Order: sequence, then structure tokens, then C-alpha cells
Amino acid sequence: MSKKPLILVTNDDGINAPGIRTLITVMKTIGDVVVVAPDSPQSGMGHAITLNATLYATEVNIDNGPQKEFSCSGTPADCVKLAIREILGRTPDLCVSGINHGSNASINVIYSGTMSAAIEAGIEGIPAIGFSLLDYSWDANFEASKSFVKKITEQVLEHGLPNGVVLNVNIPNIEEKEIKGIKVCRQARANWVEEFDKRKTPQGKDYYWLTGKFVNLDGGEDTDEWALENGYISLVPAQFDLTAHYFLKDLNNWNL
Amino acid sequence: MSKKPLILVTNDDGINAPGIRTLITVMKTIGDVVVVAPDSPQSGMGHAITLNATLYATEVNIDNGPQKEFSCSGTPADCVKLAIREILGRTPDLCVSGINHGSNASINVIYSGTMSAAIEAGIEGIPAIGFSLLDYSWDANFEASKSFVKKITEQVLEHGLPNGVVLNVNIPNIEEKEIKGIKVCRQARANWVEEFDKRKTPQGKDYYWLTGKFVNLDGGEDTDEWALENGYISLVPAQFDLTAHYFLKDLNNWNL
Repeated sequence: MSKKPLILVTNDDGINAPGIRTLITVMKTIGDVVVVAPDSPQSGMGHAITLNATLYATEVNIDNGPQKEFSCSGTPADCVKLAIREILGRTPDLCVSGINHGSNASINVIYSGTMSAAIEAGIEGIPAIGFSLLDYSWDANFEASKSFVKKITEQVLEHGLPNGVVLNVNIPNIEEKEIKGIKVCRQARANWVEEFDKRKTPQGKDYYWLTGKFVNLDGGEDTDEWALENGYISLVPAQFDLTAHYFLKDLNNWNL
Repeated sequence: MSKKPLILVTNDDGINAPGIRTLITVMKTIGDVVVVAPDSPQSGMGHAITLNATLYATEVNIDNGPQKEFSCSGTPADCVKLAIREILGRTPDLCVSGINHGSNASINVIYSGTMSAAIEAGIEGIPAIGFSLLDYSWDANFEASKSFVKKITEQVLEHGLPNGVVLNVNIPNIEEKEIKGIKVCRQARANWVEEFDKRKTPQGKDYYWLTGKFVNLDGGEDTDEWALENGYISLVPAQFDLTAHYFLKDLNNWNL
């Protein structure tokens, strides 16, 4: 019987994305790998789950294993649920999601399918990490990411994670030798200033494309955005207890 | 010029749902109302946004105003973005989302389209509240909710909310006279134990329906689940800085 950890790999860019193929390659050097990932890109899906449609999971063979791989019609969160309940037969020792093509630092964590998969695993009590590279292109270069992904994964397997915490790792898009190291950070305060691109259909009806410009509102040097701008890999512990505990006392003074 | 607050109303059950129609009725007694809501149900959409498809927003007249209403093809988060940037012409004084048909207490906040709309407004610095009634049925009775929705909304307009905090309000499905009051709470630790209903298509291919059983893992009497089980309306301040600040120091002791 294998003593290697059972690692569930998923993502939100789809099972054929170069980012997840890199992640699988790294994870195979650490443990036994099962892949359950979306059959098509799911970026911007947040923590969506499929309530009103059917789900398919089809076993596929993409790069000759030995890992088992399943292509799933659902969202990243669906993939994790389906993997745990129907495919794996037992709770995995770790869930890794990514490597995402594009940043999930700061406020992007809220919109991120990559991180929703990690959070879904965290809710199930499974140590989980979301990895993202700051390059949105399909042919992004994940070479520099490999050694850092391996190091962080091994540290998570060694130390575990507290209940209720998952890791959000973002990697700057620079040469490996330029990466200064891994920096533990808080989530920067930031937002997207949307600019809708308003157009007309051939029939004359208005429609919109969502576009936007990222704005970092946070001057702190302890944030993920600062780390990434200064050549570090950012590592933020993220929780899914959203309670703003510090504000409970104030609310109790309201006239409710 | 009106001195009444400008209130943006949205939801995730769609613009025709009884829950949002009730919310509009209450908000009209408080301020000037603009509705921008999905044209179809979006439950379970989490914080999804529409990146790879076009968005439509069509002005509609559902119950003779005077509020302006727009039916939008996107997700709840899309509705808020589109309202702020394209429809309202100025930042609203408040955004309310709901009243959701079904609970968004405890871990449900993570999957909630209702709360994602409130959080999207919060990211934009707008005071925001998500309201939910613990009845999933379309013909849920929102009568008992009205006075409490009004009271909480007026308190938010009076006190404001700190940057980074939105309110998650859940209402038990009981008679108005049985409601014991409004209780400030933290988010209970809970999860869904999924049971996939596995079936075969007429062509013999396996497919799944996602079903599940809610499990409250939290014995605390200061949680939203406790409040709701004991006849209170729960009010949880929710934040979108997901950083687990308490764990930063431990992480810094890892070998990274």
C-alpha cells in the first residue's frame, strides 16, 4: 500500500490548460495524483455550484498517467464535491488548484474559481492551496513556478493547516533567478474599476462587455500586491469564516 | 432635488421573484429606488462575473413604479457593477439584495448570489445588506420580514458601515409575533454533506444531480444558526478581506 499522500488536483481554466498540466507534473513527484477538473474554462465563476443542471464526469487520458483524470462539466467547486463524494472513494490528503493563468491576489480571490476549489476543499477539512501565475495568456511560462510550488506543497504536507484556512499563492511572471523568495502576506485592499464597453447588436440592441482596470488602494508593504510588485511569491492564508468579529460589539449598540 | 437616499435593489432569484418585490415595496418607503436584477434565477452562482459573454440590461415596468427597473442578463455581481457604472449615474447610498428565497446563513454565504451582490457593492464602498428568508419555495411568505427589513435598513442608513463590511441578515420562517428580535451573530461553522444522485441518460451515460444535507458543526450560542433555530433574526457582519490574520505568524515560522 502506498504511503504517498493522495493529492486531488483541479483548476478553473479547464483540464487541458498548461497551468494544470504543470501542477500535475509537480504533484506526481510528491504523491498519488487524481485530477478532477472542468472540461472548459471557468474563470470568474467565483464559488458557483451547479444546482439546476446535471453534472458529467468523464475519465480521460491526457498525458499517459499514471494519474487518473476526470473531465467534469461543472464548476471548480462542483469538481471538488464530485471528487470527494463519488470519484476518490476517500478524503484526499491535499487539494491543489491551478496553476491559474492570471492573478488571484488581493480582491481577485473573491471572483476566483481557482480559489473557490481550494476553499471548497477547506470546508471539507482538507488542506488546500490555490496557485496562480501573473500571466493571463494560454502559453504562459510555468517553468519558474515549479520549484516553489513543490516547496510550498511539501511544507503544507509537513505542517498541515488549521481548520478553516487555505493558502492563496500568487507567483510573479518573472525569471526564476529573479524571484526573491516566498513572502507571507495579507490580502491587499484593492478593486476593479469597471469600464463597460457598450455596443449595439446588428439589430440595434445595446449590449455590454465587462472590462476593467485593477486599482491597488493599499500602500502597505505587508500585502500580496506589494510582494508581487517587488519580485516575491505571495502566500496569503485565506479563511471562509467571513465574520467581521471586530465589528460585533459596535453592532450590539445599534437600536435593533 | 430629493433628499431621500438612492437605494439600489438586486437579488439572485431574478427580478420577478416575490422576495425582491417585497424588498422593493419596503425600500420605496425609505428612499428612491432603482432595481437592477437578473432576468432569471442565479442561485448558487457565488461571486461569479461574466467575462466571456455579453451583458444586456433592459428597462422593464413590473409594478408601475415609480422606481426604475432593469432586467439584466448577468449574475448578481454583474448587476451591481452595471448599475454603478452604466445605469445609476452616481454611487447609490445603499445597496440591498434579496429577499432571498432560502437561507444564506453560516457557510451558505460562500455560495450565495444574494450575498455576492452585497459584497460587490461593499467592495465599491457602498453600505450593503443581503436579506434572506429561510423558505426556499417561490410562494414563501415575506409579510413577517417587512418591519425587520425596514428597521435594519434604517439603522444602516443612520450608522453607516465600516469600509470592508457588509451585513448578512437571515430571517426565520415563522410568524411575525413569534420572532424574538434581531441578534448580532458570528457565522456558524457548518457544511453541506453532498449526496450525488447518480443516474443514467437514455443513452446510458452516467450523470449526477447535486443534492446535500446541511450539517451545523458549531455548538456556539453566538452563531447565526443558533439564532435562527431559536426564533431570532440573525445579523452577521461579513468581510471580504479573507486573510486569516491570526495565522500569519505561524506561517512565518515555516521553511519557505
